[in-house]
Parts: sequence; structure tokens; C-alpha cells
Amino acid sequence: MAGRSEHELSGVTLLGSQETVYKYQYDPSILEAFVNKHPENDYFVKFNCPEFTSICPKTGQPDFATIYISYVPDKLLVESKSLKLYLMSFRNHGDFHEDCVNIIMKDLIRLLDPKYIEVWGKFTPRGGISIDPYCNYGKPGTKWEQVAEKRLFYHDMYPEKVDNR
Amino acid sequence: MAGRSEHELSGVTLLGSQETVYKYQYDPSILEAFVNKHPENDYFVKFNCPEFTSICPKTGQPDFATIYISYVPDKLLVESKSLKLYLMSFRNHGDFHEDCVNIIMKDLIRLLDPKYIEVWGKFTPRGGISIDPYCNYGKPGTKWEQVAEKRLFYHDMYPEKVDNR
Amino acid sequence: MAGRSEHELSGVTLLGSQETVYKYQYDPSILEAFVNKHPENDYFVKFNCPEFTSICPKTGQPDFATIYISYVPDKLLVESKSLKLYLMSFRNHGDFHEDCVNIIMKDLIRLLDPKYIEVWGKFTPRGGISIDPYCNYGKPGTKWEQVAEKRLFYHDMYPEKVDNR
Amino acid sequence: MAGRSEHELSGVTLLGSQETVYKYQYDPSILEAFVNKHPENDYFVKFNCPEFTSICPKTGQPDFATIYISYVPDKLLVESKSLKLYLMSFRNHGDFHEDCVNIIMKDLIRLLDPKYIEVWGKFTPRGGISIDPYCNYGKPGTKWEQVAEKRLFYHDMYPEKVDNR
Amino acid sequence: MAGRSEHELSGVTLLGSQETVYKYQYDPSILEAFVNKHPENDYFVKFNCPEFTSICPKTGQPDFATIYISYVPDKLLVESKSLKLYLMSFRNHGDFHEDCVNIIMKDLIRLLDPKYIEVWGKFTPRGGISIDPYCNYGKPGTKWEQVAEKRLFYHDMYPEKVDNR
Amino acid sequence: MAGRSEHELSGVTLLGSQETVYKYQYDPSILEAFVNKHPENDYFVKFNCPEFTSICPKTGQPDFATIYISYVPDKLLVESKSLKLYLMSFRNHGDFHEDCVNIIMKDLIRLLDPKYIEVWGKFTPRGGISIDPYCNYGKPGTKWEQVAEKRLFYHDMYPEKVDNR
Amino acid sequence: MAGRSEHELSGVTLLGSQETVYKYQYDPSILEAFVNKHPENDYFVKFNCPEFTSICPKTGQPDFATIYISYVPDKLLVESKSLKLYLMSFRNHGDFHEDCVNIIMKDLIRLLDPKYIEVWGKFTPRGGISIDPYCNYGKPGTKWEQVAEKRLFYHDMYPEKVDNR
Amino acid sequence: MAGRSEHELSGVTLLGSQETVYKYQYDPSILEAFVNKHPENDYFVKFNCPEFTSICPKTGQPDFATIYISYVPDKLLVESKSLKLYLMSFRNHGDFHEDCVNIIMKDLIRLLDPKYIEVWGKFTPRGGISIDPYCNYGKPGTKWEQVAEKRLFYHDMYPEKVDNR
Amino acid sequence: MAGRSEHELSGVTLLGSQETVYKYQYDPSILEAFVNKHPENDYFVKFNCPEFTSICPKTGQPDFATIYISYVPDKLLVESKSLKLYLMSFRNHGDFHEDCVNIIMKDLIRLLDPKYIEVWGKFTPRGGISIDPYCNYGKPGTKWEQVAEKRLFYHDMYPEKVDNR
Amino acid sequence: MAGRSEHELSGVTLLGSQETVYKYQYDPSILEAFVNKHPENDYFVKFNCPEFTSICPKTGQPDFATIYISYVPDKLLVESKSLKLYLMSFRNHGDFHEDCVNIIMKDLIRLLDPKYIEVWGKFTPRGGISIDPYCNYGKPGTKWEQVAEKRLFYHDMYPEKVDNR
Ligand SMILES: [Ca+2]
Ligand SMILES: [Ca+2]
Ligand SMILES: [Ca+2]
Ligand SMILES: [Ca+2]
Ligand SMILES: [Ca+2]
Ligand SMILES: [Ca+2]
Ligand SMILES: [Ca+2]
Ligand SMILES: [Ca+2]
Ligand SMILES: [Ca+2]
Ligand SMILES: [Ca+2]
Ligand SMILES: [Ca+2]
Ligand SMILES: [Ca+2]
Ligand SMILES: [Ca+2]
Ligand SMILES: [Ca+2]
Ligand SMILES: [Ca+2]
Ligand SMILES: [Ca+2]
Repeated sequence: MAGRSEHELSGVTLLGSQETVYKYQYDPSILEAFVNKHPENDYFVKFNCPEFTSICPKTGQPDFATIYISYVPDKLLVESKSLKLYLMSFRNHGDFHEDCVNIIMKDLIRLLDPKYIEVWGKFTPRGGISIDPYCNYGKPGTKWEQVAEKRLFYHDMYPEKVDNR
Repeated sequence: MAGRSEHELSGVTLLGSQETVYKYQYDPSILEAFVNKHPENDYFVKFNCPEFTSICPKTGQPDFATIYISYVPDKLLVESKSLKLYLMSFRNHGDFHEDCVNIIMKDLIRLLDPKYIEVWGKFTPRGGISIDPYCNYGKPGTKWEQVAEKRLFYHDMYPEKVDNR
Repeated sequence: MAGRSEHELSGVTLLGSQETVYKYQYDPSILEAFVNKHPENDYFVKFNCPEFTSICPKTGQPDFATIYISYVPDKLLVESKSLKLYLMSFRNHGDFHEDCVNIIMKDLIRLLDPKYIEVWGKFTPRGGISIDPYCNYGKPGTKWEQVAEKRLFYHDMYPEKVDNR
Repeated sequence: MAGRSEHELSGVTLLGSQETVYKYQYDPSILEAFVNKHPENDYFVKFNCPEFTSICPKTGQPDFATIYISYVPDKLLVESKSLKLYLMSFRNHGDFHEDCVNIIMKDLIRLLDPKYIEVWGKFTPRGGISIDPYCNYGKPGTKWEQVAEKRLFYHDMYPEKVDNR
Repeated sequence: MAGRSEHELSGVTLLGSQETVYKYQYDPSILEAFVNKHPENDYFVKFNCPEFTSICPKTGQPDFATIYISYVPDKLLVESKSLKLYLMSFRNHGDFHEDCVNIIMKDLIRLLDPKYIEVWGKFTPRGGISIDPYCNYGKPGTKWEQVAEKRLFYHDMYPEKVDNR
Repeated sequence: MAGRSEHELSGVTLLGSQETVYKYQYDPSILEAFVNKHPENDYFVKFNCPEFTSICPKTGQPDFATIYISYVPDKLLVESKSLKLYLMSFRNHGDFHEDCVNIIMKDLIRLLDPKYIEVWGKFTPRGGISIDPYCNYGKPGTKWEQVAEKRLFYHDMYPEKVDNR
Repeated sequence: MAGRSEHELSGVTLLGSQETVYKYQYDPSILEAFVNKHPENDYFVKFNCPEFTSICPKTGQPDFATIYISYVPDKLLVESKSLKLYLMSFRNHGDFHEDCVNIIMKDLIRLLDPKYIEVWGKFTPRGGISIDPYCNYGKPGTKWEQVAEKRLFYHDMYPEKVDNR
Repeated sequence: MAGRSEHELSGVTLLGSQETVYKYQYDPSILEAFVNKHPENDYFVKFNCPEFTSICPKTGQPDFATIYISYVPDKLLVESKSLKLYLMSFRNHGDFHEDCVNIIMKDLIRLLDPKYIEVWGKFTPRGGISIDPYCNYGKPGTKWEQVAEKRLFYHDMYPEKVDNR
Repeated sequence: MAGRSEHELSGVTLLGSQETVYKYQYDPSILEAFVNKHPENDYFVKFNCPEFTSICPKTGQPDFATIYISYVPDKLLVESKSLKLYLMSFRNHGDFHEDCVNIIMKDLIRLLDPKYIEVWGKFTPRGGISIDPYCNYGKPGTKWEQVAEKRLFYHDMYPEKVDNR
Repeated sequence: MAGRSEHELSGVTLLGSQETVYKYQYDPSILEAFVNKHPENDYFVKFNCPEFTSICPKTGQPDFATIYISYVPDKLLVESKSLKLYLMSFRNHGDFHEDCVNIIMKDLIRLLDPKYIEVWGKFTPRGGISIDPYCNYGKPGTKWEQVAEKRLFYHDMYPEKVDNR
């Protein structure tokens, strides 16, 4: 039935696994990758992750966000169940919103060595104000370095309406 | 009544046909094309396909997506009923989200030899995360090769709000 | 009361007319134009037309669409009531979606000789798939020729959500 | 960590199981139940199921729907993973929309002997028309029999806007 | 594959038929019915029909509406393809909005002898005003007669927002 | 083509008329009615009128509203073009919001002697506050008198979200 | 131009006034009323007030809400500009959300002696939770006393979606 | 500045407190109450809580929900900051969706002895299905007992659209 | 209290004025300007004006639109109350949609001598079609001349959905 | 638990502080900053602030807005609680909409010396018109100076729909 052979699924250990362990302390080693079968043509993969939660490092109260991750793969794709478990590992981790999105991006760069990646967090408000950090990256020495700069320059020129309800 | 003559409809065998057969195993031979009557002026045709379903190659459970296909025809247009039957043929086919959109694009390139084409899949979530792959293509050696690159570079800079409800 | 004098309304015979005749067979001769009073400054005029219906040339069943028409006038503006009657004349006309939008654009080019024009049709689904063709045109030898190309290159990079409901 | 003890989870064999088998032929034996810990107070449980698909018994083409199931438990609750697998078993099953919702309701009545249950299907259009069947049931000889009648009498007095896009 | 046997599909001649004829003059004889397999339990069936068009009897210009039809079957269900063809037969028929919805309801009562039925039309505006007629019916001498009255009494207490755009 | 005969259109003088005169001072004599062909079955007719404007009697500045009118006809229906012209006649008329909706209802009662009628105005804000008056009426001595009371008692229990943007 | 005579506007001193004074400390004496010209027919008047702000009595930080006020007048109507000024007078006033809506209702009862009134506040979140208090009142000894009880009993059975964004 | 005196704030220890401790294990002792100053008039208070998260007792993976809590106070009101801390205490607690809403309701009944209360949870999907439990309660021997039954009988007759995106 | 001194408000005669006169015949002399205090940094100011109404020059019936005005000030800002009165002066003025937006832009250019300005009108439909004209301007000999051209070239590439309801 | 060490939180005095003082007179000295830990990669941080209110300098009445602030940090990040307190300090400050957004931007430039910043205010309407000023800034002598110009040139080409409700 599958278009992917067993061989093409090598490295994927968590998906469909029977003994998933959920860690709630930040752990980037959870992340897994598998081979990109379409390397001849650049393309985007986006993850919509509305169930992100972490802890405020100063007050200790939980923060909530939707995290959007988009990347252009080179040789590797991130496996989505391992991404889920990795994001869950922030559950009892304390960091500012601005730090979380930068850390997520850096961990995925280390795992995938992607051509391009961006991470956008949209957090719920505290004290009537919500914070949305956005960072991106293009592989140095490739055209994606310029793409990253351009996408940053023209980032979010149409802010969504936010009314805290 | 018709603006299209019988001759101009040649190659269209499935539309209005009385003995439609639905295949539920991936089969690109289903696709049919007909002649483009407006070749002097480049234009876009988009298909919105919210009824796409395939099978996860690892777990065997069904996946669901809306697939958006846009292309600039050269000599041929894809006939929409054959496209419907082709997309239905993924119903019992197992492949990752990232693979499905690349396969659909490649099959349509083979059929149509279009100037430009892009395929965007927006899947429903598994484990709280949804995946949206996007690939595109411009005919090599034409200006559409650069267009494809530009559209990829500026792809999806305004992610839609996703909250899994 | 009117800012437009009688003279400036010359050529407008259908608007406010008492004996409107509705034709339901395609007839581009219905279209009327009047003079552009602001030729010193290029500007856009858009028509939103959600009541378009035609006939499938192969199956004979009715099709429905919203047609969006945008143009930059040169010396002439199309009169909106004549445009309404012209679009109504597709009611019993059979043609594919891709053909309809190209025909509408060509008829308006003939009428208005505009600097720029584009026509976008968004049809309701058949068999779970809907089709949205888009064509455009810039007057050859003017800067609007390049504008048409650019607008085509960057057309519809953010597909609207379609779920057939 | 769990508020539910092992004992209170007895009968739950599919959730968290490592060898899930996906059947694509209608099979009500998949359904599993577990004990209701709050029987002293009537309450509602609703399932939102936007990934339902079946086959048209006459034409063989796939149908798609969102199924909403609401019930008031008596002694038993339906386990959600078994419900998922049960609904998936319609994937290659052919029946009219009106039949599907009635069958789902009857199977859940047999499993749960609930005080009250209702099933509402909202299907995607074919030929420009979509169909939304709704059935419900109250346990005979209880006040829920009258509740079912009242809810049917006042069903859906505010139809949602449907425009096939 | 089908849950419905051939016998249970008797009377269904248009669905899947190879020689569909589209009539554009009002013709209630198009309507077909088939047997209700769940008569022991009253339930609702709703049709959403956003592609309705007719002709203004006074001016001759086309009108457009979404028609919502809901009914509680007794022995018969209306077949949806025949309903589609029936509604299409208003395409060149001239009547006021208020007349159309009443006629549709009466034709379906004649066909189905349902326990209950209601028809709601939501038309597009003319001259800045849109008209939404609503009629209903309960079988005389049954409890559904009172249901019809109650549903009429409490009809549409929350008008949807209409701004003509 | 028309379902309505000439006779059945008697009293309709403005629709399709060639010499429409627009009055901008309040004039209830503009209203016209025609005969209800479906008197055996009570039904609702609603008008959505988003283009209402009047003048503040104290400050002289214009007010804007969407007016929703719903009624159950007895022997007569109001003709929609005459209703349009009547509503336009408030254009230079000064009255408070609360007065306008009551006046409109009273004029339509005088014209139609309906079984039931209600008028709901939703005005744009002044000084950050918007006003929505609602009045209704049931023919005295009929069951519609009680219906009017009930609909008033349960009016607008779910206020729409208003944020002045 | 005005439908209201000077006499009928007596008591209205703030509307159109040239020397409006804005008070930012709670002051119910600001409220003004004028005569109801339609006392023979009960009707509703609603105010949408999205610009309400007060102070938290414990922490001193500002709170924000949309206040919805609906009432059935007896002899008097509240003048909207005085209502605006009254609501502004909470700007530097400290009280809990639950207290504010009760106070507003009581002040308007004192001013208007209405048949019925209700006040609903929808506040923005603090610490991830938002609070929406709702109170109502029917004049004792009238049928509106029962109406108030019924409207309270069936209050807000369909909570709006709130996601703090 | 405050409408509430110090005395009227007695029992409120967490709001504005400087040493908030966040517990992530279920602990109903966190809840605090303060006195209702408007006991002469029944009214509703609703909390919108979109930041609820708990743990699946079988698989250990996190669940996410929006919890809506509505109650009619008797002598006491729940303090909102203590409610926030209480709901946070489910963060590392494992229970099924159906159990969580029942537990929350019972804890608030114990704290407040309210006249009426209801709790509605709307969870994000797992495996394509989302679960929305709803429970309510009216104080035995009062009219609110019947209100609870009626609100349960007519619960959620208009399911919100859920499409998992 | 004010950040603006009396001197900085010179030229502002209508705002807060006690004797506002509303003119309903087109009169550009109403417009007032005041000094821009931030000339060192170019910035945009936009006006959203949903209460625009004029008269059709041919039929005499009223037209309605939302007008969006955006500009980059040089030395002067337009005062918003005078802008309101100016737009009101179109109330009894007859002109085509295309003419109105051009006239408004030209009057504001004369008043403000801005670096850049654009005017976009979105009118309600007549005969099923709505018209949205858009014009813009950049000060000749400055970089804003090129900006105007670029903004025109890329104008409205994503038409909003319009369905006349 | 925290990813940020105490040292990395130096300069943050208000967050989690127990003695927050709310000032309601404009005071830019409230603003606090902390160190940017990711200076090697440019990124955006956005604040959504829907609870902004100030005073009209001419009429004295309150104004309300949502303020969107986006910036690219250099060495410093603004602490969000201090930003909240700073924005609150406009509560009794009088200034025009255009002035407020320019002042906010200038104060943040002074605090942060950011690479890039923009401030967009969207105010509620007065007299039927709402005003949305937008200003931005790029550090002189860096590429961000050109970015600021480009973002200004292409600002808000798709105005959101505003209807004052
Ligand atoms: Ca919102
Ligand atoms: Ca899952
Ligand atoms: Ca959603
Ligand atoms: Ca849709
Ligand atoms: Ca839709
Ligand atoms: Ca599950
Ligand atoms: Ca079809
Ligand atoms: Ca019209
Ligand atoms: Ca609308
Ligand atoms: Ca006012
Ligand atoms: Ca709004
Ligand atoms: Ca929201
Ligand atoms: Ca959704
Ligand atoms: Ca619309
Ligand atoms: Ca103003
Ligand atoms: Ca709006």
C-alpha cells in the first residue's frame, strides 16, 4: 500500500511506536529526521502547532502559543511525531517568548541543515498585551541567505486583528 | 448552445460519461487533457480540492487534506473530472504528506507540460500538529523557471490561523 | 444635482431605460461605454459580479460563478448596466470555465481598449472540485504590458480557504 | 498521575495500543465502552468528527461529511479511539447519507444504552446540493423520550449559510 | 459494497444515469422518491441549494437565491439528483420570490406526503433590498401540525447580518 | 414565462416602471401592495435593508442603519420596489432611532393589515455607542397577538459582537 | 425636518450641547431621559457599548469591556449621549466586573423605571481568563417579572468562542 | 477609588499578591471566594478559560481545551485569580475529558454552594475527533433544579462548525 | 492634559464646535487642515468612512459606499470632523462612482499638498453588480510619484469575497 | 527551570513585582529593557495591544485603539510589563491619534535603539469615521533604513473591512 518503502522510512522510530514516552523537560535529542525523496525540486513544508505551552522564567506561570514552523528541506525532513514530542518538552521549561522561538529554530537547523527555516510564535496575552516573535534563517553561502533577509524585511506587514477575546 | 465544438472537446472521455469507474489505488493514467483555445495569452487555472484522502504509510490510518493546484497552461488543459478520479485514486494509497504533493505535481507536469504549476496540501492534524507541504515548478529555459523560484521564495508569508477546531 | 452633464452621459442608453430587454444568448454587442473624465491619472475600476451563470458544454448542466473584473481605463469606461446585461447573456451559453473568462476579457478589450484588464472567475464545485480561472492583459507597447506580466507572475499566492460548504 | 485507576479503564483496549488495525469495511464490533464515573448527574458528551467518508451506493463515488454525535450516558461511555476506528470502517462502505446517520445512531444505542443520543451529518455537495440528515433517540419510558421529541421538533431552525465554497 | 440493495433503490432512475436531460422550464414531474428505511424513528433531512435562479415575472431579469429545504420523511425520501433537476427547471420560469418557495413546498408535499417540511429562500438584493420568504407545513391531524405552527411562531428571531457585500 | 398573471400583478405600478421618482422627504403614500396567492398557509417574508439613512432631529447629522422587516401576510404582500422608495423617503427626515422603527412598523400595518410584523434597526455608533431598537405586533384577537408577545419576551438573547470596527 | 418637536425633546440637554464636560469619576446624576412616544406597544432598545473601561479595586490596573444594555421602556427612554457620559464616568472608578454590571442596571432602573432591563458585560482577560457577568430585572408585579426570570434561566446557552486573541 | 471596601474584599488573598505559587498537581484547596454584594437579584457570571491543559491518563500525552464555566451565585463569588491557579493545577494531572469537567463542577459546588452552575469543555482533536463534555447542576429543592434540567435538555442544539484546522 | 498646545490646534474650527452646520450639497470648502508635528519621518494616516452616500446622476437613486482614504502628510493633516462634513456634502450630489473617488482625491490634494494619497470606494450593488474604483497620486518630482505607480500596479491582487449578502 | 539566568534577567524590575504602581499620566520613564540573547540573527518581535485609551486634546472625550508595535531588536528587548504600564500612562493624556503613534515610536527608539520599528494604531470611530495612523523607522546608515522606506511604500495595500459595527 505504501509509496514509501521500509528502507525509505529508516530513522523513523517514534511514529507508530508502541511505547511513546512523554518528556516534559526541554530535550532536543527527541527530534528525528528521514530522507527527502524530492531533492531535485525545492519545496516548503509547514507545521501548524497550536498546542505549545511553556513557563514564564520570572513568574513561573504557564504561557500558551501557536507555533508556525516553515522550512525548505535539503537532504532531510523532520518526522512530525518527534517534532510533537520535542515541542511538548517545553511544557515545564521556563523561557521568554523571544527565546523559545529562537531555540526551536536553532535545534531544527542542527537536526536538518535545511536550506531555509522560519519560526513564528503567537502567544496569548498577559496584562492585555500579546507577543509574537518571528525568526528565520537561510543557509549561508546559498541564495536562501538572501531569501531569509527578504522575508524578514517584508515580514507581517498585515497584522491580524487581535482583540483579546 | 456550446462555445466549444465537438472537435475542441476531443480527448475528453470521462466528463458526462455513463460508465465512470472509480479506482481507489493510485493510478496516474486516469488523467485526461484537452486543447487550450487561448494560448496567445498566459493565464492561471486553479483547482480547489477539499476532498482529498490518503493513507499514512507507517500507521495505516487515513489522512485528509485540501489540495490547491494552480497552473499556467501551455498547449493543454487538464479535464476536471479526470482530475477528480485521479485524486480519488490516492484513497487507499499510503504516502507521507510531503510525498503526495510532489507526486501530484509530477504527474500533472507529465500530462500537461505546463508553463508553470504549484501544488499546496493542507492536511488535518495528527497529535495536535498539521502539515502543509507546497511545491512548484516552472518550465526550464523559460521565464517561468524564474517565476517558480520567486513564488517559492515568497511563499506563505502570512500563515492562516490554525487552532485545530 | 448631477456632476455629470447630459453630454458627458452620451452613449449611455440602457441605464435608467424603461424598456430593458434581457437576452439569454451570448451577445457582446450589448456592451456600452462612456467617456473617462479623469484620464490624466491612471486608476482602477473593479466589478464584483456574484450572479454569473452559464451552461456546461458537455453535460448541459448550469454552472455558477462569481466573476471579478478589474481594469485601468484609457478613454472609455464600461457602463455597469450594460455589463450586467452582457454577463446575463451567458445564461444559456455553453462553454468551459476557462473559456468564459477569456471571452469576457477579450470582449471588454474590444469595447474599451483599456490600459490594463483582468478577469477572475470563481466557480462552484462539480464532483467536489471547483475551478478558478484568471486571465489578464496589458496594452502592448505600454508599461501596462509589463504590469500584466508581473500581476500574472504573482497571482493568487494566498489561496482562499475552500471547503465546499 | 491519573485520576482514573487501571480498574476504571477496564474495557479500554485500543487507546494507546501498539497494534491498531484499520478496517475499511463497516464493522460495528470495533466499538468499545468504559464505565461512567459520574452517573448521579446527567451530562452531555459530544464528538466532532470532520473526517468521515463513505461511498455512494449507486455511483460508487466517495462522499465526505462532518458527523456530530451527542449523547447523555447512562452506565457507559464510548471510548473515542474505538469510535474513530468504527467511523473509519465506513470508508469503503456504500450507503445513502440518510442511512449512514441512522446506522451510526443505532450502533451506538446498542453499545451504550444511552439515555439520549443524536447524530447529525453535514455532507459536501454533489451537483450543487448538499444533504444534512439528523436523527435522535431518547430511552423509551424515560423523560429522555420526550426530550428527543422536543429536540427534533425544534431542530436546526437557523440553517447555517452554505455557498458551496 | 452498498448497504442499499437494488430493490431498495427502486424508483431511483436519474442518479448515475447516463442520459440526464436538463429542462429549463418549470416541471414538477421531474421529482423522484425512494423508500425510507428508518420509518420507526422520525428524523430530519435538509438540502442546502445555493444555485437557485429564476426570472422576475415583471422585469424579466434573473433572480438568485440559496434555498434551504428541511423535512421529516414519512414513507418516502426525495432523491437528490431529481431535486437538483427540478430546481433547475425554474431557470427560465418567472415568479415572485414569495411564490417560488410556496410552489417548491407544495410540489414536495405532493411527492412525499412528508410529516413535516419547510422551505426558506434567501435571495440576492435588488435596489438595495433582499427578500427571504419562509413557509412550512405539518401533516394535518398529526402532532406535526402543531410543530409547524410552533416553528413558524419562532422563525428567524436572530436575523443574519446582511450588508449587500 | 411568468407564474404570476397580469391580473395577479395588479396594484404593482412602480416595479419595472420607467419613470421612478425618488422622494427624500418621509412619505408613506409611496407604499404599494399586491395580492397574497398562498393565504391558506401562514408564512414569513423578510426584507434585509442595509441602506437606510435618516437625520438626527437634534444635531442634524445623518444616521445610518440596517433595517430588518419580517411579517406574516394576511391578504396582501408589500411590493419591494415601493418599500425601497418608502425607506428612501427617510433620507432627509429627522427622528430618533427609536421613533423610526416604530413609524415604519405602523405604516406597514396600515398598508397590509398583516397577521404579524416586526422591525429591527441596527444603527452605526455615535460617540462610541450604537442603538438597536426592535418593535413588533400581532393582529389583536388572533393567536398572533400572543406570538408577538412571546417573540418580544425572548428577543435578542444572544447579542451580536459589536466592536465599532 | 424633525419628526420630534421641540417639546418632545424636553429633558435632552447634553445631545448637541456645546459645552460637554467629561467626568471620570462615577456619577449617575449625568443620566438624562426623554419621553417615549410609542407607549401603546412594548418594544426593546439595545445599546452596544464597546468602549467601557474601569479600574480593578485590588490591583489598580485598568479593565476593559463591551457592555450590552437592553431594555423595554415604560414612560421614558434614556438619552444616548448622557448614557455615554455616564459610562465614561467609570473610567477612574474601581470595582469588580460583577459589581459594575449590577450598578449600571440599578442606576438605569432608578432613572427609567423600565418594564424590563438587562446588562451584559464582556471583559478582556486577566491571567488567561475573561469574565462575563449578566444581570436582568423585570418590574415587580408585572408580566415582565416572569420574563426576567425566563431570560435568566435560558441565558447564554451558546457561549461564544473565546481564544484570547 | 474602589467601590469595594477592604472589608468587602476579605477572603481574597491571591489577587495582587506578591508571592504567587504555581502548583501543577491537581489541588482544589487553591480556590477562594468572596462575598456577593447583589444577592437580592439572581445573575450569571461566566468564565472563559482557553488555556486549560491536562494529561491523558492512558497515553500520558497532553490534552488542551477551552473551558467555559457559568454560574448563578448565592452568597459567594469565586475569585478569578484563584480559579486560574486551580485550573492550572490540572497541568500534570491525568484524567479523561469527561472526568475533568465533572470534577471542576463538583469542586466549585463545594466552594460556592451556588444556585446554578455549568461547565463546558471543548478539547482539541486526537485522531481526527474532538470531544466536548458538558455538565450542569441546580441546587436541589430550588427552582434552579428544574432550570438545570431544562438547560441540559436543550443543550447545544446548534453545534459549532469544527473542521480540525 | 493635552500634548497639543492651543497654537498647534490653530486652523481647527469645527472639532468640538458648538454650531456645526451640516451641508448636503457638495462643498469642498468645508475641509480644514492643521500642522503636522512629525514632518521628519514619513508616515501614513488612513480614514475608514463606511457612511458615504451620494446620488446616481442618471436614475436619481441613492448610492452607498465605504470610502478608504490613505495619505502621507507633508506639512498638513486633514482634521477629521471637517472630513466627515465634507463627505456628508455628497449626500444630495449626483455623480458616478468612478467620478466620486477621483473628486475626493483631488480636493484633498488641493487642501493638503500631501506626499502621497489614495482613495478607494467600495459601493453596494445595483442589479447584482458592485463597483469599487480606486485612484492614487504621488507628488510629482518626488519618490512618491514612483510609489504611486507601484501601488497602482499591484493594486488589489486579492479581491475580497463579495456575494451580495 | 528557567532558560534565562538571573543575570540575564537584570534590568527587569517590574515583571513579577509585588508593588506595581499604575500611573495614568504619560510617563516614558516607566519603560524597561533587557538583553537580547540572539543578536547574531535578526528577528522580529510584535506586541498586540488592544487596550489602548487616551483623551481627545480638543473635546476631552476618551479615544480607544488597538496598537500594533513591531521591531527588530539590536542589543535590547523591551520588557512587556513595563510596556503595558507605559501604554497605560496615556490613559489621561490628551493628543491626536496621529501624535500618539509617533510619540510611542520615538520613546521606544530612545529606549532600545532598535534596528527597525513600526507602530500602527487602529482607533474606534468618531462621527462615523475611524483613523489608523502608521509610522516606522530604520536605523540610519544601516540596511534597515531602506527596509523602513520599502515597508512604508507598500503599507496597507489591502484595507481591512470596517463597517463601524
Ligand atoms: Ca479576536
Ligand atoms: Ca492523533
Ligand atoms: Ca479554526
Ligand atoms: Ca467554505
Ligand atoms: Ca461557504
Ligand atoms: Ca481519541
Ligand atoms: Ca457533482
Ligand atoms: Ca437594482
Ligand atoms: Ca455581508
Ligand atoms: Ca450618541
Ligand atoms: Ca466588528
Ligand atoms: Ca478570538
Ligand atoms: Ca475550523
Ligand atoms: Ca458577503
Ligand atoms: Ca470625528
Ligand atoms: Ca465590522
